[in-house]
Amino acid sequence: MVQEQDPSKVDVLIVGAGPAGLMAAAWMARCGVNARIVDKRGTKIFNGQADGLATRTLEIFDSFGFADRVWKESFHIIEFGLWNPDEEGVIRRADRLKSTLPELSRFQPVLLHQGRIERFFLDHLKKHSPIRVERGVIPESLTFDDSLAEDEDAYPIQVTLQHLSEDEARPEQSLANGKTTSDGLFRSNLAADDTDELLAKMQLNERAGTREVVKAKYLIGCDGAHSWTRRQLGLSLEGEQTDLIWGVLDIIPITDFPDIRMGCSIHSANSGSAMVVPREKKLVRLYIQLSTVEVGDKGKLDRTNITPEMILGCAQKIFAPYKLTYSHCDWWYDIPVSQLQTAYQVGQRVCPSFHRSHRIFLAGDAVHTHSPKAGQGMNVSMQDSYNLGWKLASVVNGTCKRSLLETYQSERRRVAQDLIAFDHQLSRFYSAKPAKEGGDDHEGVGMDVFKDFLERGLVFGSGTAVEYGPSVVVAKEGDVAKHGDGSRISVARLSGGERLVGKPWLAKGIKVGVRMPSFQVLNQADARPWPFQQLLRSDGRFRVVVFAGDVLSEGQMGRVRRLGERLLGVLKRFTPKGVLYGVFDVLTIHCGDRLGIEFMDFPEALRPFDEKMGWDYDKIFVDGPSHYEGDGRAYEGYGVGPEGCLVVLRPDQHVGFVSDLEDVEGVEAYFGEFMVRS
Amino acid sequence: MVQEQDPSKVDVLIVGAGPAGLMAAAWMARCGVNARIVDKRGTKIFNGQADGLATRTLEIFDSFGFADRVWKESFHIIEFGLWNPDEEGVIRRADRLKSTLPELSRFQPVLLHQGRIERFFLDHLKKHSPIRVERGVIPESLTFDDSLAEDEDAYPIQVTLQHLSEDEARPEQSLANGKTTSDGLFRSNLAADDTDELLAKMQLNERAGTREVVKAKYLIGCDGAHSWTRRQLGLSLEGEQTDLIWGVLDIIPITDFPDIRMGCSIHSANSGSAMVVPREKKLVRLYIQLSTVEVGDKGKLDRTNITPEMILGCAQKIFAPYKLTYSHCDWWYDIPVSQLQTAYQVGQRVCPSFHRSHRIFLAGDAVHTHSPKAGQGMNVSMQDSYNLGWKLASVVNGTCKRSLLETYQSERRRVAQDLIAFDHQLSRFYSAKPAKEGGDDHEGVGMDVFKDFLERGLVFGSGTAVEYGPSVVVAKEGDVAKHGDGSRISVARLSGGERLVGKPWLAKGIKVGVRMPSFQVLNQADARPWPFQQLLRSDGRFRVVVFAGDVLSEGQMGRVRRLGERLLGVLKRFTPKGVLYGVFDVLTIHCGDRLGIEFMDFPEALRPFDEKMGWDYDKIFVDGPSHYEGDGRAYEGYGVGPEGCLVVLRPDQHVGFVSDLEDVEGVEAYFGEFMVRS
Repeated sequence: MVQEQDPSKVDVLIVGAGPAGLMAAAWMARCGVNARIVDKRGTKIFNGQADGLATRTLEIFDSFGFADRVWKESFHIIEFGLWNPDEEGVIRRADRLKSTLPELSRFQPVLLHQGRIERFFLDHLKKHSPIRVERGVIPESLTFDDSLAEDEDAYPIQVTLQHLSEDEARPEQSLANGKTTSDGLFRSNLAADDTDELLAKMQLNERAGTREVVKAKYLIGCDGAHSWTRRQLGLSLEGEQTDLIWGVLDIIPITDFPDIRMGCSIHSANSGSAMVVPREKKLVRLYIQLSTVEVGDKGKLDRTNITPEMILGCAQKIFAPYKLTYSHCDWWYDIPVSQLQTAYQVGQRVCPSFHRSHRIFLAGDAVHTHSPKAGQGMNVSMQDSYNLGWKLASVVNGTCKRSLLETYQSERRRVAQDLIAFDHQLSRFYSAKPAKEGGDDHEGVGMDVFKDFLERGLVFGSGTAVEYGPSVVVAKEGDVAKHGDGSRISVARLSGGERLVGKPWLAKGIKVGVRMPSFQVLNQADARPWPFQQLLRSDGRFRVVVFAGDVLSEGQMGRVRRLGERLLGVLKRFTPKGVLYGVFDVLTIHCGDRLGIEFMDFPEALRPFDEKMGWDYDKIFVDGPSHYEGDGRAYEGYGVGPEGCLVVLRPDQHVGFVSDLEDVEGVEAYFGEFMVRS
Repeated sequence: MVQEQDPSKVDVLIVGAGPAGLMAAAWMARCGVNARIVDKRGTKIFNGQADGLATRTLEIFDSFGFADRVWKESFHIIEFGLWNPDEEGVIRRADRLKSTLPELSRFQPVLLHQGRIERFFLDHLKKHSPIRVERGVIPESLTFDDSLAEDEDAYPIQVTLQHLSEDEARPEQSLANGKTTSDGLFRSNLAADDTDELLAKMQLNERAGTREVVKAKYLIGCDGAHSWTRRQLGLSLEGEQTDLIWGVLDIIPITDFPDIRMGCSIHSANSGSAMVVPREKKLVRLYIQLSTVEVGDKGKLDRTNITPEMILGCAQKIFAPYKLTYSHCDWWYDIPVSQLQTAYQVGQRVCPSFHRSHRIFLAGDAVHTHSPKAGQGMNVSMQDSYNLGWKLASVVNGTCKRSLLETYQSERRRVAQDLIAFDHQLSRFYSAKPAKEGGDDHEGVGMDVFKDFLERGLVFGSGTAVEYGPSVVVAKEGDVAKHGDGSRISVARLSGGERLVGKPWLAKGIKVGVRMPSFQVLNQADARPWPFQQLLRSDGRFRVVVFAGDVLSEGQMGRVRRLGERLLGVLKRFTPKGVLYGVFDVLTIHCGDRLGIEFMDFPEALRPFDEKMGWDYDKIFVDGPSHYEGDGRAYEGYGVGPEGCLVVLRPDQHVGFVSDLEDVEGVEAYFGEFMVRS
């Protein structure tokens, strides 16, 4: 019995509840957007899949408040070992590198199973909103009325959803009974798409579920490499398809190889390469170059050739003379799985467009796929929807104009292009034979070249170096197309028409377009130290950070007081009466002597008063030594002098505008470009 | 309808599910003991009550794995402000002190509502055991057969439990509807006892619940100041009863007083004293000396005189010339309460005995009560049952002898005595008038005296300085009675009869009888830094810490290897075959060059092998600089030289024995004194 219902309406419909979809949903939850998220699967994943978390991803999790859960459960990668054959062809440790550069982030990279990460997102949705993942729900048809695209009140998108019965939604290779041998591909990006199959099966099934028609203002397709949404838009991934075959094995290894608990790369003399990635709960993931597998004539991997025994066999050749075996394979949460391996074809692709009319968006694997070894897939996917979510929420909520949305593709498609270029290089490096030491080997990759590449990779891989080009929300010099994905988008301008660029030299440690770095500051009222970044919550608000400077020096507090009054005046122009602090947050950091000044000495504009809650003690901070956590030296780190400056942050912590304490006109020009005047 | 059931049996019955009872239950959960915990209340508490957590308590929570939840939600006390009247009688900030001494602990004191702390314990029980708090269950009668006390298989205790109906179990001043005005006394120690009332009400009630008879090997009474268990033993609290009256107000203050977000003490010239204790969620707790309340002729506070308005009035006089008011009072978890105050009589008492025949034990407020201002009540109560829990569990589980249990009263009654002496002094200090500055005021307390007292109080209050006297589990010199509560208990002895004292001078930073301090060490296999204390999980196991010294120096690894083999031999004598690592944990810290040695170079005795799990990579640590967290300098901190030493830790992290790497006989003598040979 298929029931037809009247169309329901939703502002944002998210298709796919993997990490990218959940990240989008997290924004909708925090910004109070009327949203739904559906996934064709009946259960969340249990094991396998991507699980490396870059430091920027941890910063993002922290801004939602659950990085601590990840930090506690995950395996921390501290060092990275490089192994190369010596002159006799025996692998030896050539070097050990730090896993990241300490100055990049207050976090280090960690490994944690994707299923746990999804759990933290689900808990977050539950805590902050009525939004719940609707599982076993599959989109069947999509229509889009382009003529309504610019009508802000319209619902130009119509989607028919099928609600599957429980049996239908369960993937065939489900691990639910804990005993089934799984080849780990059942939800892999490189497995064949089963959407059509699921739909067909459902239509034949007597216990078929209900059909539902949904009208939406916006749709986000986070439905993976085989994206149904992308297909509806007539888009496909493009780019190079390579023939490098790697096997992946999640085991508790029994080995005398010394660096088995380090991140590690091994180049053997004649048996190919391996990567060692330790994980939580004594697990180690091995990426193994499969020396004995051929690709079929269609360029697709013939999976039937690959077995865990075969992958282990290849690994043993690479690890020799060290011994490697195992008796226990991947399990998660008491679901023991006797054997698990995943085999990837290294596919590297990027989609030509990330949206249709800025109404339907694609994010994550739907628009870029690449090899798993860069450890970037899940990170970049989540960062896509992290970039999109706040923009979409602020447009839906009526505080920002639709023109803001064009920055999504410009910013994120560029990142995808960079990633794929990096990944391509990395794959080549791993698959190349090592150069013979001391020799004149032009084909092989020398250890010094490889090490240098890896070190540059640490910066790229951290995700903290992403720099968005000039746009309406990034006020700076530079060519729009060149610093983005090539699209010609708008930029912020002063009333005279010249480009808004502020005075970025007042904060030499802060780069416009890059996420705000973190240094420790102290709360003026209670002396508690905070990594400043931890105050930059993902709550959808723009932030003005007032570097008040040395407020005890002559005239400085007067400047701060004048700024406070004028700034409030400007911010009020972009917010309906009474909700200013729902749209903006103003944080002050001064560098005067903490004990020489009181909280109450600061202008009330910077420490808002509420009749029930009194003054807000969590708005004034100071750069200075703490009792228990050292000295943050924040002004030094941010490169700000005692004269102070103004920094405007986007809701995703990326820096939008920097100027001096007098440049309230600049702040107004900045927000005026993309925000709705009330 | 009252149903009689056949007696059920349980190894340990815990009466009372406040923090002390929950701490006992946590041990039972972790040690796999067959235990039950009952509480007469139908719900856990919502607000009010003690909520200061000392650093040692946080260390204990961390050993169970939930300190991070407390740390995240709580208010961190960083500084403490001292306010005194100036020459004109106007209060001024005299000084600011650190809230603790950084070298005492890796934590700082925090404030968090007791209801949340109970929540974390409940989650912990759920995660680790089938033990659940049985609420609305009230003990009605207790019989104890003393003749069976020393029979390890006997159940000499019989308790009749009444299961209350939901209505009966709900306290009259329940805040369940979120609107009721509460005076916060409904579960206070100083409220009248309502056990008899509850029982009587139940007998009259037609919907009375079932009656149950339980036979138990052991019983722990954690049932508060009016302890029913204590009454059954014919014991009562003794000591001084004072007439100092303080009011407590939990509000969101609206005030221009600058230190309102600091821990703070205020001595006014003529209006008494106040303490400011900021809490989570913008709340501040004010302890206010009530200048206008008299105690009735029975020496008991007449509660009807005390209103929040009256307490606020007293506070306003003390805070003058600063303004103080509020419009919002305590709430917890969306349960708004329009007014909450608590009034304490400062009662300071300690019980003459903490047990009956080492079968029935009392812990927490059941054996000591004191004023709330020392912030120690909940901490010392939990630390009581933290001390008792592992001892009882190891006796019930058959690994330790009953003689171990006599150390409970010796160790904890002494702490209670010390606390009450400290608390008495503190109360006098707070209630005394401040000395006039510069004058020759013998009655008043000078600021320097007060400050000095407070600084000494930081050490005491942290809980980290508790030093247990010599006993079977603390092998050291000293008079047993003098260093305990006066009881004459046994001590560890060598086979020749002389006292076992080891070579404590080999670890100058480690005190026998005190909890093991924490310094950062790195995991040899993966380079991750750990505060060493974090590895000392509360899992019921004794730990041998092998300070292996500089293993790269000549002969040292040979010493370590010989130790490893002999040590395993000794430990096996105290464990049934195959469960050695269920009873003992062996951790190694060396101070050689980390990169100069491999994990596999250490003897297998120190890195156990399991056929399924491989080698245990989490047993070998090294003192050295980390990449991201500085240098722990652990050997320097522990005062251990390159020759190394052996340290035996009790399951509660207190140091039991220190000697050199050859003294395996000492280790055997130590464990032989109180452990059962297999």
